[in-house]
Amino acid sequence: MKDTVSTWAYGTSLPAELYVSEEVFRDDLDWLLKSQWFLTGHISQIPNAGDFFLYAIGNESVIVTRNKEGEVKAFHNACRHRGSRVCLENEGYKRLFTCPYHSWSYDLDGQLRAAASMPEGFDKSANGLLPINVGVFEGLIFVNFAAEMDAPDFTTFTQRFAPLMHGQGLAQTKVAARKTYPTNANWKLVVDNFFECYHCSTAHPSYCQVHDKMKLLAFGAVDRSDDPEMADHRKWLAEWEAEAEAKGYPTGMFHDDATSAYFQAANRLPIAKGALTESMDGQPIAPLMGDLAEFDGGQTGCVFSPLSTVLVNNDHAVIFLFIPKDTQETTVEAIWLVAPDAEEGTDYDPQTLMHLWDTTLKEDKTITENNQLGVASRGYRPGVLSDREVWIAEFGKWYLEQRGLI
Amino acid sequence: MKDTVSTWAYGTSLPAELYVSEEVFRDDLDWLLKSQWFLTGHISQIPNAGDFFLYAIGNESVIVTRNKEGEVKAFHNACRHRGSRVCLENEGYKRLFTCPYHSWSYDLDGQLRAAASMPEGFDKSANGLLPINVGVFEGLIFVNFAAEMDAPDFTTFTQRFAPLMHGQGLAQTKVAARKTYPTNANWKLVVDNFFECYHCSTAHPSYCQVHDKMKLLAFGAVDRSDDPEMADHRKWLAEWEAEAEAKGYPTGMFHDDATSAYFQAANRLPIAKGALTESMDGQPIAPLMGDLAEFDGGQTGCVFSPLSTVLVNNDHAVIFLFIPKDTQETTVEAIWLVAPDAEEGTDYDPQTLMHLWDTTLKEDKTITENNQLGVASRGYRPGVLSDREVWIAEFGKWYLEQRGLI
Amino acid sequence: MKDTVSTWAYGTSLPAELYVSEEVFRDDLDWLLKSQWFLTGHISQIPNAGDFFLYAIGNESVIVTRNKEGEVKAFHNACRHRGSRVCLENEGYKRLFTCPYHSWSYDLDGQLRAAASMPEGFDKSANGLLPINVGVFEGLIFVNFAAEMDAPDFTTFTQRFAPLMHGQGLAQTKVAARKTYPTNANWKLVVDNFFECYHCSTAHPSYCQVHDKMKLLAFGAVDRSDDPEMADHRKWLAEWEAEAEAKGYPTGMFHDDATSAYFQAANRLPIAKGALTESMDGQPIAPLMGDLAEFDGGQTGCVFSPLSTVLVNNDHAVIFLFIPKDTQETTVEAIWLVAPDAEEGTDYDPQTLMHLWDTTLKEDKTITENNQLGVASRGYRPGVLSDREVWIAEFGKWYLEQRGLI
Repeated sequence: MKDTVSTWAYGTSLPAELYVSEEVFRDDLDWLLKSQWFLTGHISQIPNAGDFFLYAIGNESVIVTRNKEGEVKAFHNACRHRGSRVCLENEGYKRLFTCPYHSWSYDLDGQLRAAASMPEGFDKSANGLLPINVGVFEGLIFVNFAAEMDAPDFTTFTQRFAPLMHGQGLAQTKVAARKTYPTNANWKLVVDNFFECYHCSTAHPSYCQVHDKMKLLAFGAVDRSDDPEMADHRKWLAEWEAEAEAKGYPTGMFHDDATSAYFQAANRLPIAKGALTESMDGQPIAPLMGDLAEFDGGQTGCVFSPLSTVLVNNDHAVIFLFIPKDTQETTVEAIWLVAPDAEEGTDYDPQTLMHLWDTTLKEDKTITENNQLGVASRGYRPGVLSDREVWIAEFGKWYLEQRGLI
Repeated sequence: MKDTVSTWAYGTSLPAELYVSEEVFRDDLDWLLKSQWFLTGHISQIPNAGDFFLYAIGNESVIVTRNKEGEVKAFHNACRHRGSRVCLENEGYKRLFTCPYHSWSYDLDGQLRAAASMPEGFDKSANGLLPINVGVFEGLIFVNFAAEMDAPDFTTFTQRFAPLMHGQGLAQTKVAARKTYPTNANWKLVVDNFFECYHCSTAHPSYCQVHDKMKLLAFGAVDRSDDPEMADHRKWLAEWEAEAEAKGYPTGMFHDDATSAYFQAANRLPIAKGALTESMDGQPIAPLMGDLAEFDGGQTGCVFSPLSTVLVNNDHAVIFLFIPKDTQETTVEAIWLVAPDAEEGTDYDPQTLMHLWDTTLKEDKTITENNQLGVASRGYRPGVLSDREVWIAEFGKWYLEQRGLI
Repeated sequence: MKDTVSTWAYGTSLPAELYVSEEVFRDDLDWLLKSQWFLTGHISQIPNAGDFFLYAIGNESVIVTRNKEGEVKAFHNACRHRGSRVCLENEGYKRLFTCPYHSWSYDLDGQLRAAASMPEGFDKSANGLLPINVGVFEGLIFVNFAAEMDAPDFTTFTQRFAPLMHGQGLAQTKVAARKTYPTNANWKLVVDNFFECYHCSTAHPSYCQVHDKMKLLAFGAVDRSDDPEMADHRKWLAEWEAEAEAKGYPTGMFHDDATSAYFQAANRLPIAKGALTESMDGQPIAPLMGDLAEFDGGQTGCVFSPLSTVLVNNDHAVIFLFIPKDTQETTVEAIWLVAPDAEEGTDYDPQTLMHLWDTTLKEDKTITENNQLGVASRGYRPGVLSDREVWIAEFGKWYLEQRGLI
């Protein structure tokens, strides 16, 4: 593998083997599960003790639940007896997680409560569901599969996002809609696609209609902020920022480079001139969220890690989960969130809410799958990245360094 | 592999790799095919010379037929010319097995009878269908894939079952129904599931309604025959045995431990108090079989090998075939047998006949597939077996020893 | 692999591993793509500049098109940017091939014409679509995947076929029909099947009804031309040849042995006594092609390579493409060609045109798939080839030698 990678140059796409080799995928997944925090869902999915949902990645199934103390907990969905899936429903409520095979029962802290006919000396306390590290930030539930003492620090992972999330009430939202987009492509191609907007004008007409053109040109691109052509855009941004700040709304941005442990980024930017939210016509599609008294048309984008992103608008938010399943198979899941008291049918229409990103994610599925097909053929050569694909260059370098391949 | 297994302890389930590795499966299959006798069907399926059925396991297809001398024969279903499947129908009658590719024709002894345009010196007698070892016991047709001289001795394989089969007429039965249950699980998980009734109360309500509860508690369990709580049960069993023996019906049991070449077991036990046969209400569902003059409610269970089991009731029998197909794919097939002169519609109803085990095998398919899913995930750890899973502990040890892994 | 092959003897089918091993398939494909010319289609599919069709083999997708100078060109269908499939339609017309991902645009010579926002120093001329070697013979478009300088000489590849194609107008034909037959078998079994007519009497009743019986007996068979039984047949052939030559029509034949680089063969022979073309009743099913003034009932068969064959009758031709997809997966494609001015419905009926070979290829799919199933089982042994399978013996030897396995 190192031989393959030795020919790689910064600023080009990765060697084909990294997108098609089953061995590389297995090692990727092992590294990802242990080193990264994976966004799984929102606390509104489990408001009460015993509420749960399942999260699946690779061959893993995770029970995410809330215990009697109100803490969010996550466990491997595998019985400590002979390994059966313990919980078969995708979501619901349980007082105990009782295995459908032999009725071993685990409480909401994963402790084994009942296991009949066990031999003398059997220690229930040593046979609880194996825990998975959990962190909650602004209502977002993250998991990490490292051994507990090796878990990356969750505060370090989230702290830079806090100022940009201030006042927007993400923690108080509720799920309004969700949809999955099974994609026949390696997870790194899904990430590459999300990290540049160079393809937007070709592939995403609706998205381009909604967002400010100059902003999209600057997304993930070489810094052109000194470019005289950008003067008007800079002026507009500065004015918008001043207005937002006057309202007490957050502004700002940061973006990691390849030396980061997580490859994080965030910013708060306006959708487009005159747009109040990320909808087809820029008009609100749900009630204001959080502490916001009025629309400012801003959107907080948080890339917690290459596989976990959230976009927060004034009236709704969208969670994006990129879930590696197999070498050439990634599940993309989107979850739309609205204010907690918004009523479906009255305050928002799920189809309208979903329209833009549903359209865009379907387009992304197609282009990413065609990317995979080409990468798997002999005609593929790692290609030179454009000035609008800086984040892909950095992501590639970050990936190779984290994996110890360069 | 030995490294993986070195952490295994008796009394726990096996390491995950043994259930998910393709290499382990290939080696398992090679070992099984050569060392074990596989139950394939019943002689009533091929009453006359030229009658045949196909048996499939892994990538193998076997022609099971009867020659003019009335002997049961089995052959690899692969032409000695260029390898085509010779017989494409699953069952039927042939005077000659003629390959659909080039019409090479084989007689019922597998001898090549016709092969046109062959070069001088071609020896027909050296180009018969490759034989597979066959044994018939009580009408049950077994095959083994070892070279003829390496075939395990069939008499040794069957002799201990004879006394328990006495008088029940299994050899004279006929097939009344059959059904397959394709199961996405490794063959060893299918066997594990069949070797314990610890899961019955959770997963098999119908089965538990039919069978005596104390008997199920004792199935594959630590010996508790001295336990005072079992006194009533022992008394009932003793009375039932005395009655059965008075009628001239067989009783008794044996069970191999991990040192056995075949891991065999058999017993004859009553279904439940007041039950005449293994039906939902304990009432007969077909005419008495064999020499039986009256019902005694007994059931002879014969585990010829972990993959080949037969249950013989007074009025019907059920054959269970567990057929490894791929690493995580096993076909379970059930064949229901009744007395030879029983008439469908008049003497038995196939749906009623099948009801209990069809229900139970569908449940088994579900729990075994959920077991496989969990075993394939990182949350699986070999778990401590209960006092009611002694046969799983023994089976695991037997498997590891036979495979040379411990 | 060499160990496996060391047991192989000339005149027998190949060891199973060569038909079932994924590693062997990968190496086969690598060798085939570089050393062989693959027939992909006919120039009538791309009459004008910008017309194109896609050709797929293994994981490869090839754009076959015509440039402004009228030259046929072929390119890897993978963008030089990040590898996406550039062209998604199977056939059509393009002025530029514009990638659906980021709109990189390539002209009909594969030159990169547009790529926005590329960094300084980016060299468009070094980022054209990767070319694939192309050769055109009698309207047939062949491709080869070697580096340009390593491409096998196309003139050498085709020159011996020219005399047998003379006057038949294949270059001027047009596509009348096409159909694919996805076949679950290794490509070598598909070739084996096509290289002998020993199976015809068993498997192809329609084909045998059409063709002269003695001719089929001689196809790919041991030379029996001195056999007194063949005297009548020889006399008929000699008379037919004299008539054909009197008309100025070509006759003759050649066949390579295992020392050939391509394993080529060709001949021109009569269909059958009284038959004018290869139709069910021997009667014409389309207008005469090329310079032919009248029917002579001849058929030119050209095996350009084991995977690329053409049959040219007086009134229509059939192209056969055998396309390796995966270890046990080969796509067989047939393309029927007729005179350029023949009108569908008036001059020919596609169903009638296709009938014989559609019937025959469906039969071939079945027998080849059953061959693969048998070869993959333990009952397979390389078998002795008949006197009518000389070309299979030679093909096997040729394959093993070309692959460096003997």
